[in-house]
Amino acid sequence: MFLETEPTKRDIQEAHERIINQIHRTPLLSSSAINKIAGCEIFFKCENFQKVGAFKFRGASNAVLSLSESELKKGAATHSSGNHAAATALAAKMKYVPAYIVMPHTAPQIKKIAVEGYDAKIIYCEPTLQAREEALNKVVEETGAAFVHPYNNYSVIAGQATCAKEILEDHSRLDYIIPPVGGGGLASGTCLSAKYFSNKTKVIGAEPKSADDAFRSLRDKTIHPSVNPKTICDGLLTSLGDKTFSILSQNLEEILTASEETIIDAMKIIWERMKIVVEPSSAVALAVVLEKKEKFAAKKIALILTGGNVDLKNLPF
Amino acid sequence: MFLETEPTKRDIQEAHERIINQIHRTPLLSSSAINKIAGCEIFFKCENFQKVGAFKFRGASNAVLSLSESELKKGAATHSSGNHAAATALAAKMKYVPAYIVMPHTAPQIKKIAVEGYDAKIIYCEPTLQAREEALNKVVEETGAAFVHPYNNYSVIAGQATCAKEILEDHSRLDYIIPPVGGGGLASGTCLSAKYFSNKTKVIGAEPKSADDAFRSLRDKTIHPSVNPKTICDGLLTSLGDKTFSILSQNLEEILTASEETIIDAMKIIWERMKIVVEPSSAVALAVVLEKKEKFAAKKIALILTGGNVDLKNLPF
Repeated sequence: MFLETEPTKRDIQEAHERIINQIHRTPLLSSSAINKIAGCEIFFKCENFQKVGAFKFRGASNAVLSLSESELKKGAATHSSGNHAAATALAAKMKYVPAYIVMPHTAPQIKKIAVEGYDAKIIYCEPTLQAREEALNKVVEETGAAFVHPYNNYSVIAGQATCAKEILEDHSRLDYIIPPVGGGGLASGTCLSAKYFSNKTKVIGAEPKSADDAFRSLRDKTIHPSVNPKTICDGLLTSLGDKTFSILSQNLEEILTASEETIIDAMKIIWERMKIVVEPSSAVALAVVLEKKEKFAAKKIALILTGGNVDLKNLPF
Repeated sequence: MFLETEPTKRDIQEAHERIINQIHRTPLLSSSAINKIAGCEIFFKCENFQKVGAFKFRGASNAVLSLSESELKKGAATHSSGNHAAATALAAKMKYVPAYIVMPHTAPQIKKIAVEGYDAKIIYCEPTLQAREEALNKVVEETGAAFVHPYNNYSVIAGQATCAKEILEDHSRLDYIIPPVGGGGLASGTCLSAKYFSNKTKVIGAEPKSADDAFRSLRDKTIHPSVNPKTICDGLLTSLGDKTFSILSQNLEEILTASEETIIDAMKIIWERMKIVVEPSSAVALAVVLEKKEKFAAKKIALILTGGNVDLKNLPF
């Protein structure tokens, strides 16, 4: 069963032990060319190399593996058309249990194929939040499957926290870790790991300026919904949940935002200099550093490259 | 001064010691998804992560570092508009000596910028072989710089051989190593390292079907020129030299060719599944495996990903 309270240090350690044999320990890479461009020392945590091509597999794995035998038999369910869908599907498949993925019928063919490739059952719905939730409730009711929320779930957050735990194991003297902020699951996990496993590393969230609902939510101390944001960062469209809002309110240093133009520049710099494929949502962390060079001058910073699932036929450069 | 005879085992060991502190030890990566697609166990030697983004830095480094103090002072020269130009420029820069790069004035802007970025002096010429050689001879005469041939040079070949030496240090039980074949420098070095550092690993060359001059040269036991080949693999346009022809004739198991379509498919598979950026010339090694699945079924194979310098604005998919 899922964690019912904010993850403790021990919860995150247990999450890591639980998933360690089925995740990749991703590398922390650096590029002297990018350090020169940015004027600081950057370490990229390459979750684009994670299974399913995104950090989301950590949280989904920890959630699925936290289920009891009897819960597990009924499978896992979620609504998502992105990386969390694939992550939940694979985590269920690895335990030989069914996954039910609610997806708008408008989702790109490439996403459907990815999820089908992990043998999940896709339930199509209209592309509205209401239709999505109704379809999910229906499938959970019918099957008894456990709902693995993409971010507003403490077991998912504990799973995402293992990413920063690994970063700090590899490099203990960081000034900052910068995760992108969408629904806040990764950012929340990063804050908790920084608190538990470091005594100097601060966490700064990175958000597209044109999808800055988390920035405004923390500033105004209330959750603002994310209304039709226009950003290339398709993984950062969601708003915070109550659990992630609470953790970020208490632990996050601040949120910095970057323009779409800088995000695309940052993405191109990563592809060209590091020769790795990252999705736009990953590039926002480098983008905020490039827009605030004085703040980060000569600092040691880990940036989380959240994923590498990108449509090669539709690149922004 | 450059090696005057075919590199011995000791020559390759010395080359490795000479360059080890200025090259990256690139990783040998694998992908279970690609193994499933190909039906064999593949290890990718990621020279796209090498300095200047290509294996060429190994050969150029070894050549430049083999020069005597008095030779070195006069600098290094070469003709190339591709990775070897950048490699020679950086190798010279790291020894604080001048590099002279002869390049057709029609070379893409992006290549000029890359070479200028390493502080090399570019000498522009007409885009013909004759103009290129004349310009090179002139600069060598005027400056006394050492001509670092892109592949038909034993010190360059010994440098490229360090790539397969590392592969075999990381994985000693390989059935095959497959390098792409352009001028044959990498393939020659790979053959020599396989002969010296393994007793079971065979080397197979990979060539685009539409630039199969090396295939025909080895079959007909005479060097065929590469005449206006139409291939996306811009690193594999050159023909063999007498030194590489001789080494390959004696040591290479065979050359396999692949269609442009399979090369582009293979490139896309590498980008999508491994989340790394490789240039088309790198993909031909996977392409020949995909076109001959029965031959390679269940074998252990290292493929050399030669480089990652690709124009992101002009991708083939």
